[in-house]
Amino acid sequence: MRALVKHHAGEGLRFVTDRPTPEIGPRDVLIRVRKAGICGTDRHIWQWDEWAAGRIPVGIVTGHEFSGVVEAVGEAVTRVTKGQRVSAEGHITAGLDYNSRTGNAHIARDTKILGIDRDGIFADFVSVPEENVWPIHDRIPDRIAAAFDPLGNAVHTVMAADVSAKSVLISGVGIIGLMAVTVAKAAGASRIFCTDVNPPRLALAKKLGAVEAFDVREGSGWLGEIRKACRGEGVDVLLEMSGADAAFDQGFRALRNGGTAALLGLPAKHVNFDFNEHIIFKGCTVLGINGRKMWETWYQMEELLLSGRLELDEIITHEFPLEKFEEAFATMISGEGIKVLMDLG
Amino acid sequence: MRALVKHHAGEGLRFVTDRPTPEIGPRDVLIRVRKAGICGTDRHIWQWDEWAAGRIPVGIVTGHEFSGVVEAVGEAVTRVTKGQRVSAEGHITAGLDYNSRTGNAHIARDTKILGIDRDGIFADFVSVPEENVWPIHDRIPDRIAAAFDPLGNAVHTVMAADVSAKSVLISGVGIIGLMAVTVAKAAGASRIFCTDVNPPRLALAKKLGAVEAFDVREGSGWLGEIRKACRGEGVDVLLEMSGADAAFDQGFRALRNGGTAALLGLPAKHVNFDFNEHIIFKGCTVLGINGRKMWETWYQMEELLLSGRLELDEIITHEFPLEKFEEAFATMISGEGIKVLMDLG
Amino acid sequence: MRALVKHHAGEGLRFVTDRPTPEIGPRDVLIRVRKAGICGTDRHIWQWDEWAAGRIPVGIVTGHEFSGVVEAVGEAVTRVTKGQRVSAEGHITAGLDYNSRTGNAHIARDTKILGIDRDGIFADFVSVPEENVWPIHDRIPDRIAAAFDPLGNAVHTVMAADVSAKSVLISGVGIIGLMAVTVAKAAGASRIFCTDVNPPRLALAKKLGAVEAFDVREGSGWLGEIRKACRGEGVDVLLEMSGADAAFDQGFRALRNGGTAALLGLPAKHVNFDFNEHIIFKGCTVLGINGRKMWETWYQMEELLLSGRLELDEIITHEFPLEKFEEAFATMISGEGIKVLMDLG
Amino acid sequence: MRALVKHHAGEGLRFVTDRPTPEIGPRDVLIRVRKAGICGTDRHIWQWDEWAAGRIPVGIVTGHEFSGVVEAVGEAVTRVTKGQRVSAEGHITAGLDYNSRTGNAHIARDTKILGIDRDGIFADFVSVPEENVWPIHDRIPDRIAAAFDPLGNAVHTVMAADVSAKSVLISGVGIIGLMAVTVAKAAGASRIFCTDVNPPRLALAKKLGAVEAFDVREGSGWLGEIRKACRGEGVDVLLEMSGADAAFDQGFRALRNGGTAALLGLPAKHVNFDFNEHIIFKGCTVLGINGRKMWETWYQMEELLLSGRLELDEIITHEFPLEKFEEAFATMISGEGIKVLMDLG
Repeated sequence: MRALVKHHAGEGLRFVTDRPTPEIGPRDVLIRVRKAGICGTDRHIWQWDEWAAGRIPVGIVTGHEFSGVVEAVGEAVTRVTKGQRVSAEGHITAGLDYNSRTGNAHIARDTKILGIDRDGIFADFVSVPEENVWPIHDRIPDRIAAAFDPLGNAVHTVMAADVSAKSVLISGVGIIGLMAVTVAKAAGASRIFCTDVNPPRLALAKKLGAVEAFDVREGSGWLGEIRKACRGEGVDVLLEMSGADAAFDQGFRALRNGGTAALLGLPAKHVNFDFNEHIIFKGCTVLGINGRKMWETWYQMEELLLSGRLELDEIITHEFPLEKFEEAFATMISGEGIKVLMDLG
Repeated sequence: MRALVKHHAGEGLRFVTDRPTPEIGPRDVLIRVRKAGICGTDRHIWQWDEWAAGRIPVGIVTGHEFSGVVEAVGEAVTRVTKGQRVSAEGHITAGLDYNSRTGNAHIARDTKILGIDRDGIFADFVSVPEENVWPIHDRIPDRIAAAFDPLGNAVHTVMAADVSAKSVLISGVGIIGLMAVTVAKAAGASRIFCTDVNPPRLALAKKLGAVEAFDVREGSGWLGEIRKACRGEGVDVLLEMSGADAAFDQGFRALRNGGTAALLGLPAKHVNFDFNEHIIFKGCTVLGINGRKMWETWYQMEELLLSGRLELDEIITHEFPLEKFEEAFATMISGEGIKVLMDLG
Repeated sequence: MRALVKHHAGEGLRFVTDRPTPEIGPRDVLIRVRKAGICGTDRHIWQWDEWAAGRIPVGIVTGHEFSGVVEAVGEAVTRVTKGQRVSAEGHITAGLDYNSRTGNAHIARDTKILGIDRDGIFADFVSVPEENVWPIHDRIPDRIAAAFDPLGNAVHTVMAADVSAKSVLISGVGIIGLMAVTVAKAAGASRIFCTDVNPPRLALAKKLGAVEAFDVREGSGWLGEIRKACRGEGVDVLLEMSGADAAFDQGFRALRNGGTAALLGLPAKHVNFDFNEHIIFKGCTVLGINGRKMWETWYQMEELLLSGRLELDEIITHEFPLEKFEEAFATMISGEGIKVLMDLG
Repeated sequence: MRALVKHHAGEGLRFVTDRPTPEIGPRDVLIRVRKAGICGTDRHIWQWDEWAAGRIPVGIVTGHEFSGVVEAVGEAVTRVTKGQRVSAEGHITAGLDYNSRTGNAHIARDTKILGIDRDGIFADFVSVPEENVWPIHDRIPDRIAAAFDPLGNAVHTVMAADVSAKSVLISGVGIIGLMAVTVAKAAGASRIFCTDVNPPRLALAKKLGAVEAFDVREGSGWLGEIRKACRGEGVDVLLEMSGADAAFDQGFRALRNGGTAALLGLPAKHVNFDFNEHIIFKGCTVLGINGRKMWETWYQMEELLLSGRLELDEIITHEFPLEKFEEAFATMISGEGIKVLMDLG
């Protein structure tokens, strides 16, 4: 079959046409991939940065965001049938620990991730355990379903923070931050403020529903504006999606006493953090966010999509045939594209 | 001053112009009423039905939905000043019991209600304790603020049930049910279904955001339609706003296992209820809703209004000068008007 | 193998020694039963009352409360190994609906129950799907593990109602009600009140930690006593475990405004219920409780047992060899025994 | 009247007998102090460290933990009467912001604290606003009520973290940490582990209910022991009460994925913190804890005291007459005493 393989310990991926189709065990499902999304993680793997060099086994098929169709099922599979349109949760666990067994498999101790720890979805076929397969609702097209993984990150963050009838600051409007804007609005956030250092993304954030979008390179006056708009107290909710040190400090300053901060962005290293001012005196709640809940987040995502209120057309910007993967990656890496898909036919 | 007085144990109210302005104690606030809303309760008092005859003291000034301006404050008042635009929470308690002291004064044991247990707001002036006064946000007009009381009922019900990214059935689209449609949509409900027996109100519910609005007199096919739309399982949330026996039974049938039902509508008498099927086997959560939380609901209502997403123009339908109170009540009682206001100048 | 079979549509069970050992599919686990508990449901099946006649297929092996050892596993089983001490959740679902996929399989739409809808555990061997098997902690003996099912009902009810630092009324101290007394105390209930009509059970409730235990046949003075003890307002939490109509009415009267009621007891028929007084005006939260959460309840139960604070010795009163099943059932049905076990060797 | 005054910008307090009795405004309550507790904050004020020098106005009467009797009430006071036994919440706000108005006055923006920002309770009389007065339950003695302030910190931390049927690590067993041990046990924590560097306090923690108490100077083997005891995963809940940098790092290592950390201890400065490992990948919830909730925490504290399960006798170790204040402070500062009271007669 066709596949994009991390063929060597260096930049790039190799396109091959002779990768063997994956074997499936008795509880596995073989899925024919139709649409695949390029994640920020895939960029790290392409660029072979320090993180990738330390984590990714050379020879692996990469990619983990996708939608497709069930091609075959193992003999002990009972919940999925051939021909179903499906996506899949890329966090695979043995199902033995507390979190796996209580609806929080996304934070299991033994998680293996598609396209990182085992062969992923930049290929004609992928094999995943039945437990990880998600049937796609009839009214949701393949193109949208290919983005369930990052959209699920945004939904998980927004829903964990409980934004309904609340003011929200989203710090960082990269791919997931932008998704969070439309998700938060659809989920009932009353007023959404955004910060970033990228003017076109800030402009898009406003288009998607932010009432204000601030370029933090232009000074910290925005902090006062947000507080003023929010009873002089600050926003009810902070969604931290940048991972930037300064955003941690400023984001908590913008948060009112007793507010909730949901943290998704990963700082590059330790943060020198003022727990007293930002969390303890303030009486804040801080939520670490990672992956998506299985399956609560996926159901919430489906409902939000069925509401018709998610605006993803300007976030899912490009689609290339698999063979044009170099163009696809270049479009994503340059920032010209936001969510870039590859079509496998 | 001018006032509408429940002058005798029978139908109607009497308009007087010589009612003495209320005295204020050291902790009270005297408010000049500008806009007053007519509640379903006021209709009961006007019509002098069994409930009213048993509860309302003859001689009282009625009415409890309003907005106005602070005219004077008692000498121990510290939180309110002359000239502020305000509304007020009509549930007045001594502040001594558990609920009063933990943010749930709306269910205190000793509540006295404006316009029911003590002089209300169909008058040029009303006196309320400082604890009950709510300053109106600059961006919210008097006309909307006059509806804070019923709108707060809708907000309390919707927010208690947590509708964000959930499917919702609203059974009963009277004044508060209609408000609940626009509130639930703004608060992030993914899909709203409505039931009632009043076609024009059902049509308005669709206009305000319901995806389907069913006339339950046309058979119970709607139950199957709702289930089908909701994975064959039923809605996530039921907001019961009719008080009708049949609606209790049908509403719980439409609710999925593990769903949440918030009950605001008051049944006329005991309900012969199947706890096993509707609550216990189903693993449901049922919330009794009454009044508004002080002040959590009010802050949520303010945020929802500031979001610009509440559509109240077709719900607040009429406004009459106080002197035309008979016309105002007739418009409300006939159903020609939905929320009918009186202007006091 | 040996088994107790519901051999005819009438009273009693038949002891057989020639029941074939169950087949196991690729995802099933064959468990050798060591200890089995007799549930109130088993009594209904024994007595062949109306419910049993309508629900139980003649020819079935009954029983669902047990502990045992894994004898064999299907070829696709990965989470369980031969020789493990295990119990199992008796609610079996296909894992396809919302609740099954979000940690609430106990309220799935398609639940089949061991010993009711399919062969149960009054037998040397039982086959259950791997998903339903629960490994028993080393420090928990077989005798206690055999009661995980009813103890789990008590834990689910208590934990759902959140009793920590709260006053609690347990109405009905049958088997699960008594378990709820020791569970609620261990889980941090500040003060536990009980009601029933059975003096020895009430005496045992006090021994297990209730501060007061009232025989409701002696008048309703206990209502005043409870309110007086609880600031004149009522208990924070009601755990309804009797299913008696009068207990519904009185229990809600004993509950303070804004309190939480968890309902486990099943009324025999519809209840003529005052929603206004008991739920809506009161602002109460009502929780329907059924089965046990998979696996949150089981982890909580394990923690409570490891705390050393659960007192089960006077609740698990008798143990008989399987062959003496008639004596075992008689002891349970007469009320001489509370939780009665059978030992299978 | 008698009082302990911070008479100069240096060490110690001065005992005076001619301090004028405080005036009371119309909404204030004058309380005769009977028992007063010495807080860690009072030690800072006594020692005049950097924090104290920057915050405390010279000339102030210090102290904020107390119980007493109402001596007089202002003319607009309605909720308190002369002769009532009372304590008071020391956080005083104008009642105008979001948190003050929604049951979270402990994190209001404008809080003034008794004995820090205004005259406190090391004196025969103190004046506090009616809103801050808490009537003492008949069954709770003055001696215990004098410790409501620090005990309330412990209750707030424990209840916010929701310890019922959960394993808990308390890092730091100073005064409030020790109180948290007995509170967590009474509130239903299944197993309590403690860490500190003070062997006698660790020994007392075990006596109060900890299953293990580790001296962290003896290496980090305790981390493995805790994980092993907790399914190899870690504790469900971390209560951080030391403010030590190392405790932050180690505490989060001991916490299982998806666990909850409640932070009460104040680090001396910024913490160099690994958000990725400790919060984000772990999917943790972190709660900043400060003061006590008005009045939810106080009601919970009352319930826990009425349960008879709080063991405070070895925590409230000493009591001196006010005149022996120097001995009282020395006993507290040396660590010989834990909670040290002064009696005012």
